[in-house]
Amino acid sequence: MSGEIQFVEKIRRLAAVPAGSRLVLGIGDDCAIFRPRGALEDLLFTTDMLLEDAHFRRGDHPPFALGRKALARGLSDIAAMGGEPRFCLLSLALPDWTDERWADRFLKGLLRLARETATPLAGGDLARAERFSCDIVVCGAVPRGTALRRDGARPGDRIYVSGRLGGSALGLATRSGAPWKRHLLPEPRLALGRFLRETVRASAAMDLSDGLSLDLRRLCLASQVSAAIDPPPLFPGASLDQGLHGGEDYELLFTAPPRTRVPSRFRNVPLTCIGLIGAGKPGTVTLAGQPLAPSGFDHLARRGS
Amino acid sequence: MSGEIQFVEKIRRLAAVPAGSRLVLGIGDDCAIFRPRGALEDLLFTTDMLLEDAHFRRGDHPPFALGRKALARGLSDIAAMGGEPRFCLLSLALPDWTDERWADRFLKGLLRLARETATPLAGGDLARAERFSCDIVVCGAVPRGTALRRDGARPGDRIYVSGRLGGSALGLATRSGAPWKRHLLPEPRLALGRFLRETVRASAAMDLSDGLSLDLRRLCLASQVSAAIDPPPLFPGASLDQGLHGGEDYELLFTAPPRTRVPSRFRNVPLTCIGLIGAGKPGTVTLAGQPLAPSGFDHLARRGS
Repeated sequence: MSGEIQFVEKIRRLAAVPAGSRLVLGIGDDCAIFRPRGALEDLLFTTDMLLEDAHFRRGDHPPFALGRKALARGLSDIAAMGGEPRFCLLSLALPDWTDERWADRFLKGLLRLARETATPLAGGDLARAERFSCDIVVCGAVPRGTALRRDGARPGDRIYVSGRLGGSALGLATRSGAPWKRHLLPEPRLALGRFLRETVRASAAMDLSDGLSLDLRRLCLASQVSAAIDPPPLFPGASLDQGLHGGEDYELLFTAPPRTRVPSRFRNVPLTCIGLIGAGKPGTVTLAGQPLAPSGFDHLARRGS
Repeated sequence: MSGEIQFVEKIRRLAAVPAGSRLVLGIGDDCAIFRPRGALEDLLFTTDMLLEDAHFRRGDHPPFALGRKALARGLSDIAAMGGEPRFCLLSLALPDWTDERWADRFLKGLLRLARETATPLAGGDLARAERFSCDIVVCGAVPRGTALRRDGARPGDRIYVSGRLGGSALGLATRSGAPWKRHLLPEPRLALGRFLRETVRASAAMDLSDGLSLDLRRLCLASQVSAAIDPPPLFPGASLDQGLHGGEDYELLFTAPPRTRVPSRFRNVPLTCIGLIGAGKPGTVTLAGQPLAPSGFDHLARRGS
């Protein structure tokens, strides 16, 4: 099996969208965009799996945090497009080691965040399995035609990130303190996403789920541009490597035309210009002038090989 | 862990839908119903997992059939509400035993049915895992307020099923001939579902995925009614037990007021009256006058126990 980018590219080639479909955007962005007949809003859809041993180990993650994180990951995709969440769906496969108390705590973590963000659980599916698996679908909405996408970056645009990077990777390595909390309880940047759509009018945006080096490459490929960046702001204690390649920060990566005024903070979250979009070979990223290889999280890479 | 009905009931209690939400129907039917602002159509959403060892064994199912079935199960839920499919999303976790050829065949099976039914693949998620797992989300649409639901059956309504039951269970037991084909390649009853919504105006409907005895009980619980049935039409070779309790037939179960004219066939599919809705204890089902225990497929029952 080839890597994730190649496999997704193959699926995209095979999955032709028929004439007359109301799909505005299909495979390849944080969310798909669907335009219901007569509606004032475009709907955004994202799905995210959370699999035992692939994405977490049962001994490490308290079930309440895991339930919350399952939904947070989907909400982060909605935030990346500037959307407001509308509802979610949950598919859950429970192994025998999950007793009633564990399942309750998982659900409560998920449903607490659902309440906080007005994302009611609308349905789903249940099964027994040998490993725990969970797939979350989140539907969000934006006024028609206004979703932030990956493919809008243009040469000359500035590149920004929210927050400080590498905290989640540091937490996974140390399992203690603020970085571990950051890993367990990421905060989807919903309010920031809306601000980027309504006020900043970002030219492109996506969330940082698989590491800056890989995600920025994806944004550049979607926009058919290159990028030149400086080291990003780092989470206290995180290494440059963790900040560049660590996954699961769930901060937002976005671009804006050079004359756009981007504030240095939104609420308590710093917004930092880290570089410039260029007209080089699409998908190439340089750090301080040197090529930056994408070594973030490839979901189809074989582990340990 | 208690059974599926109890667990779903608990989730439903915890998952409060906030005021102002545009969810028309949440947990507990074949699909959730969402009403987009200003739209002419209601949108239907269903999710269905297909898990190695829980729902299939890798040696038994050719990948092309498996991909097709993954989508067919979701389309069957859309059919049950009388919907037309709009798009689907696919979350896929691939184990190391799936090579590129296997994954290609799986995708091709899924995408062939997607083309046949105008259900473009809009996006999804990918991961590596120890077991194969797949979660399909299908979005469908009906004119506003017209979705067929489980909760509309009234005492005096007649109960109907499409097709002949037990074929899939027989196929799983024998692994040969027409029953096995039926098990591998179920046909979602999309055209029939639309006919039931537009022409018959069925009072309630659902698809038969977990066995008539359990699914009819669910319909009765949702409608707060009882049911009295005779033996259903059986797939050639299937036992009464397979017809009553066997899962995965993906036929439609529906009810209609006594004066409604229901044809004996729709295209090539027989439509058979099998009984009557009553005002007895909600959820009770009798077969030829005797109580019929729901012994279909409980998704949370521990296997082999």
